[in-house]
Amino acid sequence: MSQQLSSFIKDWAGKMDVELKKCIADLQAPPPLLEAMEYSLLAGGKRIRPIFLFATLDALGHDPLKGKHAACALEMVHTYSLVHDDLPAMDDDDYRRGKLTNHKVFGEAMAILAGDALLTHAFYLLAKNAEGMKPEQFVTMFQEFSLLAGPNGMVGGQAADMLGEDKKLTIDELYYIHERKTADLLTSAVRMGCYIGQASPDQVIHLTTYAKHIGLAFQIQDDILDEIGDEAKLGKKVGSDKDNDKSTFVSLLGVEGAKEQLHQHVQQSKEALAKAEVLSDRLADLADFMVQRDY
Amino acid sequence: MSQQLSSFIKDWAGKMDVELKKCIADLQAPPPLLEAMEYSLLAGGKRIRPIFLFATLDALGHDPLKGKHAACALEMVHTYSLVHDDLPAMDDDDYRRGKLTNHKVFGEAMAILAGDALLTHAFYLLAKNAEGMKPEQFVTMFQEFSLLAGPNGMVGGQAADMLGEDKKLTIDELYYIHERKTADLLTSAVRMGCYIGQASPDQVIHLTTYAKHIGLAFQIQDDILDEIGDEAKLGKKVGSDKDNDKSTFVSLLGVEGAKEQLHQHVQQSKEALAKAEVLSDRLADLADFMVQRDY
Repeated sequence: MSQQLSSFIKDWAGKMDVELKKCIADLQAPPPLLEAMEYSLLAGGKRIRPIFLFATLDALGHDPLKGKHAACALEMVHTYSLVHDDLPAMDDDDYRRGKLTNHKVFGEAMAILAGDALLTHAFYLLAKNAEGMKPEQFVTMFQEFSLLAGPNGMVGGQAADMLGEDKKLTIDELYYIHERKTADLLTSAVRMGCYIGQASPDQVIHLTTYAKHIGLAFQIQDDILDEIGDEAKLGKKVGSDKDNDKSTFVSLLGVEGAKEQLHQHVQQSKEALAKAEVLSDRLADLADFMVQRDY
Repeated sequence: MSQQLSSFIKDWAGKMDVELKKCIADLQAPPPLLEAMEYSLLAGGKRIRPIFLFATLDALGHDPLKGKHAACALEMVHTYSLVHDDLPAMDDDDYRRGKLTNHKVFGEAMAILAGDALLTHAFYLLAKNAEGMKPEQFVTMFQEFSLLAGPNGMVGGQAADMLGEDKKLTIDELYYIHERKTADLLTSAVRMGCYIGQASPDQVIHLTTYAKHIGLAFQIQDDILDEIGDEAKLGKKVGSDKDNDKSTFVSLLGVEGAKEQLHQHVQQSKEALAKAEVLSDRLADLADFMVQRDY
């Protein structure tokens, strides 16, 4: 990873911690609910979706800070999906990123409510980002975000994933799941950056294509790292997909096949990016990082 | 209940069934997720929040149909809160309105996801209602709805309710819970009607006061009906609050004390309504209905 990208990621991930803390501090709600929300929000995520939003603004020549509320919204939606996903009725996970999961610390009922609260408050934060935007772009951004995070998008992907748990999926079914479960929210991040950064309609089209391929590349690399990654760097055990007999890009295509798909998606993302004619290398660097990352 | 109000409620509750069905039919998501969403949406709710939104539009001289997307959004948020509330980790209810609860039919994991999907899709539907609205009013409506449904509002009320389950609450604590758990979403319904129906700033203030008192009156009547209601009309067993040793307006104030509070809130709602100078009796009739209703 280039030095420049590395400090961009570090800077903005750090700023996210500060912003997310502020969002929680501004709330007036029963303290145990706020603690549960904050616990998972600040449990050390990679802040991938906010980073892509900030990088899009940078690439369009805007101050990334313009997207801070939207970035918090993205991270809240991502976090709620993890909190609910870890519940006993879902994946029943005790640990995430080396820390106890939300329901192990706060109990199942509070974890359900904390997830609900994070999801709902995300929309408030997105609405806060309306200030300074063109109204029609705000409405479009809002409609898209709620579509991409909802039954047509992320939640639909989660449902398909759960329904497919005990069977061997086809590669098409796997793509169906991850286009929704992973790529849709990342696409939403980039498109939010486009709206806030007033991208041209052509730029929106090309950056959307970029984001879709990056989202899939991200998931494929996740599957590869679960097979051949370094536990210390990942902060979690590898081989869990295999142990759970889960259909992944690696189980369906092998490590080499998955790597080939990864490179293809990164290649396609870069081709789309070239057409978008943006002003900085940030998004191109992030595409390379998707292949190189080991955590 | 007046014949006029009775047919207004019946008509609009019927239209809600049609609209909600359409909302689900328009989605492209795994069929079991859509079935779970539709099951609870169409499980025979009273459609109280949409009715208040429609009545507000009627009182402001607008076609209630203008609020149909927002009404579906309200009903989706209300429904998701019931689906999650019924979960084994929360209230662990097997039946609601005489039908099996969502998780009893579709399993816990799907019930969690159906709730998440309903909540997320509600925001999409609200954004759909932006069409034809003034942009700044839409942004305000959106911010308010997400605040009143989130940790500062409904979810905060749910959390406080859960945290207070095993202790005897004070009347102030009970008000804290129900202002958030019940009154906030009803207030949101009336305020949405104000924004869509372009109420004057003064009307918004008075109708908000009206709605807050109505929301509390609604909850108090619920508590009274749980004590002295007719099981056949209610479609559920009475006395469950007492059996569960739950703090309610009746347990704290007695039936007569609760009735007195109910009348006071209805009185205050009507006083506020008088100041709003609206064009129809619909909202006044609904206030009376809050006292008379037996289901």
